[in-house]
Amino acid sequence: MRFARLGPVDRETPVVFAGDTAYDLRSITPDIDGAFLAGGGIARVRAALESGALPVLDGADDLRIGAPIARPSAVVCIGMNYAAHAAESGSAPPEIPIMFLKTPNTVVGPNDDVRIPRGSTKTDWEVELGVVIGERTSYLDSPDDALGRIAGFVTANDVSERDFQMAASGGQWSKGKCAPGFNPTGPWLVTPDEVDAGALRLRSWVNGEPRQDSSTADLIFDVATVIWHLSQYLQLEPGDLVLTGTPEGVALSGRFPYLAPGDVCEVEIEGLGRQRQRFVDPVPGIAPAAKPAEALGARA
Amino acid sequence: MRFARLGPVDRETPVVFAGDTAYDLRSITPDIDGAFLAGGGIARVRAALESGALPVLDGADDLRIGAPIARPSAVVCIGMNYAAHAAESGSAPPEIPIMFLKTPNTVVGPNDDVRIPRGSTKTDWEVELGVVIGERTSYLDSPDDALGRIAGFVTANDVSERDFQMAASGGQWSKGKCAPGFNPTGPWLVTPDEVDAGALRLRSWVNGEPRQDSSTADLIFDVATVIWHLSQYLQLEPGDLVLTGTPEGVALSGRFPYLAPGDVCEVEIEGLGRQRQRFVDPVPGIAPAAKPAEALGARA
Repeated sequence: MRFARLGPVDRETPVVFAGDTAYDLRSITPDIDGAFLAGGGIARVRAALESGALPVLDGADDLRIGAPIARPSAVVCIGMNYAAHAAESGSAPPEIPIMFLKTPNTVVGPNDDVRIPRGSTKTDWEVELGVVIGERTSYLDSPDDALGRIAGFVTANDVSERDFQMAASGGQWSKGKCAPGFNPTGPWLVTPDEVDAGALRLRSWVNGEPRQDSSTADLIFDVATVIWHLSQYLQLEPGDLVLTGTPEGVALSGRFPYLAPGDVCEVEIEGLGRQRQRFVDPVPGIAPAAKPAEALGARA
Repeated sequence: MRFARLGPVDRETPVVFAGDTAYDLRSITPDIDGAFLAGGGIARVRAALESGALPVLDGADDLRIGAPIARPSAVVCIGMNYAAHAAESGSAPPEIPIMFLKTPNTVVGPNDDVRIPRGSTKTDWEVELGVVIGERTSYLDSPDDALGRIAGFVTANDVSERDFQMAASGGQWSKGKCAPGFNPTGPWLVTPDEVDAGALRLRSWVNGEPRQDSSTADLIFDVATVIWHLSQYLQLEPGDLVLTGTPEGVALSGRFPYLAPGDVCEVEIEGLGRQRQRFVDPVPGIAPAAKPAEALGARA
């Protein structure tokens, strides 16, 4: 099944698609969130769809598309999970999954405008396969056990500011990963029965020119391994979003310019839908350069 | 004012203290969360206290103490923010605040048991001044503007597993910061009028023996600078928790043993209250060593 959330920001209506028709889920759940996913919501929707009990959402085509899940409790990311991307970033392929976090308030709709952060000169795109967790997950015995914990998959753009991530960060990447709007998600949450997550083509474009074009078959650590591994270190909650890493073809490689106001970025994963973001001017004001400690009032 | 949340996990009752008496806030708010803090809740409580409108919560002394804030949307941490701690960790003092994230589900009550993570040999304590954000905060013009965005202060223990943080992480610290129970918070949320956040003694003990003993006067980047700086890179939400860094005296220094099952850790900040955690046996099972890529099913 394909789920989505349609309507204005923070007032999205949960829907399920059958073909091109959007069916309104508000008789079953107020939102597509952790409580819905962990409480058997997907099975209830399947039954309601089959019995013809769901009303069509009129005018769905004219509505904004939100992220297909409500704000998660955590966005957990894997870095350097494609060998060619690690190489273009100047790194060897990792021997163990590298985990970092984005703040959950970065999650926005797939086609929402994204503001270039104030002071940014290195805003970059990253198409990624996103995994949505279906139930509380801790200390899985094996990667095979991970598959039953997955509610579905999404297209995601792990937007990144490379100076904030690496030059102004002391080496901790999150500072370049959390600007408002830096996690376009969707359009759809697709249940695992409808996709082969191990062999999905994932692509990105800037102003219509191709950038990334790879397959999740090239993941160093596959989806099951990632979820199993993470479960040894933290407790994943229903509705949480796990981003599995980006393949080669980002601006950090030096082969392409970084994003500027007016640029249009598109990212697509086979079977999970395509996003299209316009990058727009920063909030006006004085830029936060990577200032020396004195300028920051340091008392070292 | 001193706020707290008392009662069983996930069913805490919000209270405010006047002297030793806990007053029940359920007539004003269902919880001490972002909506309460951003919606003028503190002022409403002050007025209700002064007018004698709040009922006493009977039996408060016998209740478990929860974290004094509901689960935040983000826990944002500053690393290496005391020069002597940077030195004991083998690092130079940073020239810019180093930011990393903990998952919000690590936030637990100040006296709850903490499980040693499975496979851990380097579980460590970190007393830290925690700042609770009172309203949505982005792109502050100056550190001075940060002070009006602070709802209050809390004692926090930024529990850390050093091998997970540094050896099994590829250098991204969050993997060692997010185990269940790794963020004891409270006992109280204290409003800014009642503490001088720039000069608070902060201490820790293990099994009654002193470990850390410093002052927030030694912060490299003070509270206002930290909040202002973070606001240039992400949007802080009401109810979010910012941990400002730990001073010297942790096990990572090599001067003390790491925590083991049965150990009792206490951390205290002047005016913000003392925590006492018993560290207990891991969840039984096979430990996740820092395995080579082959063992992780890597396809590099």
